[in-house]
Amino acid sequence: MSQDEQQIRELIRTWMEASKAGDTDTVLDLVTEDVVFLLPGRPPMRRDEFAAMSRSQAVPAAPRIEGDAEIQEVQVAGDWAFLWTRLSVKVTPPGGAPMERAGHTLTVLRKEQGRWRLARDANLLVPVQPAA
Amino acid sequence: MSQDEQQIRELIRTWMEASKAGDTDTVLDLVTEDVVFLLPGRPPMRRDEFAAMSRSQAVPAAPRIEGDAEIQEVQVAGDWAFLWTRLSVKVTPPGGAPMERAGHTLTVLRKEQGRWRLARDANLLVPVQPAA
Repeated sequence: MSQDEQQIRELIRTWMEASKAGDTDTVLDLVTEDVVFLLPGRPPMRRDEFAAMSRSQAVPAAPRIEGDAEIQEVQVAGDWAFLWTRLSVKVTPPGGAPMERAGHTLTVLRKEQGRWRLARDANLLVPVQPAA
Repeated sequence: MSQDEQQIRELIRTWMEASKAGDTDTVLDLVTEDVVFLLPGRPPMRRDEFAAMSRSQAVPAAPRIEGDAEIQEVQVAGDWAFLWTRLSVKVTPPGGAPMERAGHTLTVLRKEQGRWRLARDANLLVPVQPAA
């Protein structure tokens, strides 16, 4: 495995841990200034909106967010790379029942001053139907 | 605009026209052997399944498929590239009312023997609600 691929896999691990810990500063440090998040049924989300959303999830009464990302592929091309994952995320509101979403992500990364950051992200997760 | 970007934009135009014409052979020639289509709520679709689906849409009784892709960004890195679009697709079954889906796509392309092909694609389209 190349050093770039190792660094990219480490980025995903850091991302999942920081999200779980509500550590917004660390998460924001992992995305580029011009990041674009693509989600179904809404306009593209840029850095400012993503930061506001992340901070609203990092207050004491915020839901607990636990995710599991299985990286399916990483490809590096110079200072750009992409990866796709199978991702599941469980969100538990305080005192509430957990809600689970699962599916895939396709992500483009860019290397800036020797550090990989998330630059474009398509999130295809859908709610998991509880077993009957 | 670089020659690579021109060729990639031409690929998207060809894709939309071939889809509209039900020209499956042309569409299949625009994707790599290892292509992966990511869609919400279903497993990744590989080339064989995509080919079968495309052929089923190319029979005389098939729905008419008209799409409009607005390319938002193209980035080229050697033999890899990515783009994202704002896409709307109208599907009209024979004698039926049109159904419209809209949203974004994030696509990774690969250059093979001098030709760009679609290699990974995340499709975030959702049904458009008819105006009340």
